[in-house]
Amino acid sequence: MKVVALAGGVGGAKMVDGLAMILPPEDLSVVVNTGDDFVHYGLKICPDLDTICYTLAGIANPKTGWGRDEETWFVAEELEKLGSEMWFKLGDRDLATHLERTRRLNRGDSLSKITRAFCRKWDIKQDVFPMCDEPIPTKVLTEEGELSFQEYFVHRQFKPVVKGFRFVGIDQARPSEGIIEMIENSELVIICPSNPWVSIGPIISLAGIRESLRKVPVVGVSPIVGGKAVKGPAAKMFKELGFSPSSVSVAKLYKDFLNGFAIDIVDKEDETSIKNMGIETLVTQTVMRNREDRRILAKEVIDYFVRL
Amino acid sequence: MKVVALAGGVGGAKMVDGLAMILPPEDLSVVVNTGDDFVHYGLKICPDLDTICYTLAGIANPKTGWGRDEETWFVAEELEKLGSEMWFKLGDRDLATHLERTRRLNRGDSLSKITRAFCRKWDIKQDVFPMCDEPIPTKVLTEEGELSFQEYFVHRQFKPVVKGFRFVGIDQARPSEGIIEMIENSELVIICPSNPWVSIGPIISLAGIRESLRKVPVVGVSPIVGGKAVKGPAAKMFKELGFSPSSVSVAKLYKDFLNGFAIDIVDKEDETSIKNMGIETLVTQTVMRNREDRRILAKEVIDYFVRL
Repeated sequence: MKVVALAGGVGGAKMVDGLAMILPPEDLSVVVNTGDDFVHYGLKICPDLDTICYTLAGIANPKTGWGRDEETWFVAEELEKLGSEMWFKLGDRDLATHLERTRRLNRGDSLSKITRAFCRKWDIKQDVFPMCDEPIPTKVLTEEGELSFQEYFVHRQFKPVVKGFRFVGIDQARPSEGIIEMIENSELVIICPSNPWVSIGPIISLAGIRESLRKVPVVGVSPIVGGKAVKGPAAKMFKELGFSPSSVSVAKLYKDFLNGFAIDIVDKEDETSIKNMGIETLVTQTVMRNREDRRILAKEVIDYFVRL
Repeated sequence: MKVVALAGGVGGAKMVDGLAMILPPEDLSVVVNTGDDFVHYGLKICPDLDTICYTLAGIANPKTGWGRDEETWFVAEELEKLGSEMWFKLGDRDLATHLERTRRLNRGDSLSKITRAFCRKWDIKQDVFPMCDEPIPTKVLTEEGELSFQEYFVHRQFKPVVKGFRFVGIDQARPSEGIIEMIENSELVIICPSNPWVSIGPIISLAGIRESLRKVPVVGVSPIVGGKAVKGPAAKMFKELGFSPSSVSVAKLYKDFLNGFAIDIVDKEDETSIKNMGIETLVTQTVMRNREDRRILAKEVIDYFVRL
């Protein structure tokens, strides 16, 4: 059963990890948001791509969900002594990824090609794709002006009030080679429980992606549970943009292509509203507190929608 | 006594370290070659500047003469796993210097300004100047074609036969602000025992430097001892360019501004030829095997030329 997952960072990686535990690797492909990517210290940093890859490789920091396991901080220690900006802390092992990616980009390799090469080195058997090769930096329009995504997310800890988003260059960008065909030939697409605005949003805004999603079975897992985001600013964004932070609001953003939606037991009351949009629902325990939760949720989601 | 030292990397750093042991810090300024600078992994690396600064800060690796003390190699270990080029190995602590320098250059700071800021952080009391703010990359013309300096020096371990050098952009470059005045107001300029072709060569090729050196007392220390370079390719370069590798050949390159030259006891026979060029000589033990040797040589050089 060919499955394509669309994913952001930490929440997406948990779902992808669950899927990787139950699907043969050749049956799982992941398309990852690159809107969070930025250049720091002259290095190209792709936070979501790295979180997904580190997780699939089994080398992610199990405590944070992002960054490397067995990480050391000698570079950061010296950077602090030099009076550097310390709001985006880079671990030594993680830094190697950004250095080598930058080196390969500078010699002309595409981000897709580099990601494939890194996956081979990390012994990742699934196909992992950046959503596109061009940089599409997400700008967050806030009451304090327009901020780059990492400035808003990490440096300002998503405190500024959000008024909207801008995916710079999205109209000129093309999805990575092969992604559209891969989605159209898949038996199931899974929208991971990632931020609908800034993780899934950029992916489905790319030319041709929404159209391809309408042609195949698509199921999602809600990132909003009991009115709150499992992690990050998703619920806060819904509120600031004038929507109620709920699974129903998430489903509305996806309703033109979503066939099924997994929502949490605590949101059972949302089921009717979602069904009224013509979307099937699975009400289950969606919060993944450990690896076993990931496996169980992935299996439930696949089993349920296979039965449909 | 105001002293200005012109220096390259390891040999220069030894001399500068000796001078720093005997001169009050406010009396010693160092002008450092930047022709070896290059961009690697997207980061600006200034090998000579870092070697001088690490040495003055007392944080240089005492075994190699370059790189950091108490260095760790976690980034390099991961880079190797990712299949990176490993010919220029970057230690973790050293890497922080390149990262922070690149960050500051990207925001518009000049290399001089960054160097001053780093010196304050490292508690270096002497003034250290890059020879200029613009990149002047040294190209080595070899029988295998033109190579960038680090490609020749580190990657190819200076094996290719040298036919000449090109300091790209030297005609348009200006010495760092204040250097010319500093030299002209100094009581003594010391040409460190650095490579005359690729360490001292770029500095004295900058507009106005040779002219300023002719106005003040200038003494040098020969980097060639017994027909060999103490370290690096200097002797090999002399031979390949058709000169005998000797103190006499070095003195000839500097003869329009050199007033005195320290040569090693093993090269005593060179004394007459050098004196015939109108250059005073100091024949002494010039090879610095330890920190005490550095102090003794620095003191001998200063005392001797003060007496003159």
